[in-house]
Amino acid sequence: MSQLAQRSGGLGDTLQLLRDGRPRTRAELAQVTGQSRSTVAGRVDELLALGLVSPTGEASSTGGRPPATFAFNPASRTVVAIDLGATHARVAVTDLACTVLVEHLETISIADGPEVVLDRVAAIARRLLAETPDASGRLVGVGVGLPGPVDHTTGRPVNPPIMPGWDGYDVAGGLAALLGCGVVLVDNDVNLMALGEHSARYRDVDHLLFVKVATGVGAGVISDGAIRRGAQGAAGDLGHIAVPGCEDVVCRCGNLGCLEAVAGGGAIAAQLSGGEEQVSSVDDVVALVRSGDAAASRAVREAGRSLGKVLAACVSMLNPSVIVVGGSLAALGDQLLAGIREVVYGRSLPLATQHLRIVTSQTTGRAGILGASAMVIDHVFSSDVLEGLA
Amino acid sequence: MSQLAQRSGGLGDTLQLLRDGRPRTRAELAQVTGQSRSTVAGRVDELLALGLVSPTGEASSTGGRPPATFAFNPASRTVVAIDLGATHARVAVTDLACTVLVEHLETISIADGPEVVLDRVAAIARRLLAETPDASGRLVGVGVGLPGPVDHTTGRPVNPPIMPGWDGYDVAGGLAALLGCGVVLVDNDVNLMALGEHSARYRDVDHLLFVKVATGVGAGVISDGAIRRGAQGAAGDLGHIAVPGCEDVVCRCGNLGCLEAVAGGGAIAAQLSGGEEQVSSVDDVVALVRSGDAAASRAVREAGRSLGKVLAACVSMLNPSVIVVGGSLAALGDQLLAGIREVVYGRSLPLATQHLRIVTSQTTGRAGILGASAMVIDHVFSSDVLEGLA
Repeated sequence: MSQLAQRSGGLGDTLQLLRDGRPRTRAELAQVTGQSRSTVAGRVDELLALGLVSPTGEASSTGGRPPATFAFNPASRTVVAIDLGATHARVAVTDLACTVLVEHLETISIADGPEVVLDRVAAIARRLLAETPDASGRLVGVGVGLPGPVDHTTGRPVNPPIMPGWDGYDVAGGLAALLGCGVVLVDNDVNLMALGEHSARYRDVDHLLFVKVATGVGAGVISDGAIRRGAQGAAGDLGHIAVPGCEDVVCRCGNLGCLEAVAGGGAIAAQLSGGEEQVSSVDDVVALVRSGDAAASRAVREAGRSLGKVLAACVSMLNPSVIVVGGSLAALGDQLLAGIREVVYGRSLPLATQHLRIVTSQTTGRAGILGASAMVIDHVFSSDVLEGLA
Repeated sequence: MSQLAQRSGGLGDTLQLLRDGRPRTRAELAQVTGQSRSTVAGRVDELLALGLVSPTGEASSTGGRPPATFAFNPASRTVVAIDLGATHARVAVTDLACTVLVEHLETISIADGPEVVLDRVAAIARRLLAETPDASGRLVGVGVGLPGPVDHTTGRPVNPPIMPGWDGYDVAGGLAALLGCGVVLVDNDVNLMALGEHSARYRDVDHLLFVKVATGVGAGVISDGAIRRGAQGAAGDLGHIAVPGCEDVVCRCGNLGCLEAVAGGGAIAAQLSGGEEQVSSVDDVVALVRSGDAAASRAVREAGRSLGKVLAACVSMLNPSVIVVGGSLAALGDQLLAGIREVVYGRSLPLATQHLRIVTSQTTGRAGILGASAMVIDHVFSSDVLEGLA
């Protein structure tokens, strides 16, 4: 948050200061914000009335009546977070600290189209809200991740390659009607995984790249603390960048040497299939490597090197301080990361790599849900939305 | 600017609104900012006292006394903009609208080290200020571009490869002392070229990539309207990204296939040299192509394709809507752009390229100066600095 915004003194700013959970007095809030005591007292009263802030006791006093302290109350509202993949729907109810209160995961087919899929996830969400005490009345927003490009401003998919029937569909409007909630935000699933990993584990990191390595490959870019979506919401689309030295591989997009065709989980599975062996999914690849299969281990190591060649270019371009590798193939940990690290540290310039960490995701499949929740909470914490709650 | 900041009502916000030059009444400003008439009147009085805003007459009235109008007065203050390259120093004095009032260009050697070079540019700046009526007393800040990585927060170069003696030198502090000006901002030259091109020609574009193709190759990344420098200020370092299919070229950095070693102006000159031909600079390459030399034209076209391969990856990663190609080789216009366009449009996904423009710089060597000036003005327009002027 800029100094300018911090001084603006809206409700959201006061709440942002309290968001870390530490109790503060009115005098402390006045000192940090530079606002008058009376302004701060008014803000605190509004936040208390909304239930977003709770009294937490009294501070120690140097004499006279000890001043009351207040802290953020994350349990005061709930968020519905929805993570849709090609074949899964994960739905959760969280509080305002991104803590998952209740969660449901099931197999779906995104190709059934938006009406069928959104009806189903709305039904799951309604059931989860019903199971959470007092949750329905306290719902502030719904966050949705989709496995394709999304126009974040309108909440509609844009030419999504694996989502037949979804192009241009009003996902935000549809879910708003189904769930009776005016705030529905939609984004690409990998952007939300980046946001989830960032908000859960790397809040102090301003420049982070999240790379999902599953059947396909994609990335989410966090720069100066925020997701960068690009002009059409297509930023981070790593899967069709050409891998140097792999010009003999033909991709389904028609180009040669695309990262996804060289090092995606689907491509690795296809490489390992043949003869008596049938390797049909990323899970099969992970199982083979864990069973000690030498060919599978070699293939994953080599895929890591190919990922490293493209990520080295990303490091030169974006200069992140953390690369988080997630997606189902990241379950292999160092067996995937070894090749990535070898090439990135060898290939990029020292200035960009000397403080660079390359790690696996620590959110075990929940990055998308956490990101969907964080997206909604960040939005709600802006003053305009907060004042609408009052 | 976020809605939050717009509502905050600092001096900077009021000035930002007036920055477009259009005269406005107090009532219009109150309406746009949502501030009270008395708050707005106070801000306008402060800006009038600072000379940053001037009375421009009266608006038409529907009855009663016509209300006074006010407009931004860019002539009220001056900025010193300094663009340092390996072998040139360009120094200008601008107003607060980035308009160059007076300018000087001379040959220097950056390798003479910071004391010699900064003494020289400070002497030039003092002379230019002396030549500009009333300029010295109205100087608000100095912007400096350096041909290497810069820690923007401290104003010091970080391991700059072509700047012996400059590593870690306090450029900001040195120039502040030499010019008696407390506000000195330093950045990498290509970042400032991106900022200059953006502020002069593409203010409405949120996602822009500026690529400098000269002896070397570098880029500046504008995403969501602001320069993204990355964790160590090294973002946009395109020169050592590997070009697919060029693994046989050895770079001075020790890696294979680096863009600079394949398609930089220095590399092209080296390729064309040999036999009786001596091609020692990018200017020689430009002259040869303009003379109709077939080998030089082929080399530039091929360099464009190599640039295109790396820029296609950048397009997938960042999804810009404009790529501006600058630097001395960009003087060849479409002869360089043809190869870039051929590969970028063929290689990147349709979603990212359907609205993408690839153009040459229109600021004819002044992008760095314009960016240095814009950097200072953006900084000065923040409320904290403005209130310091009062």
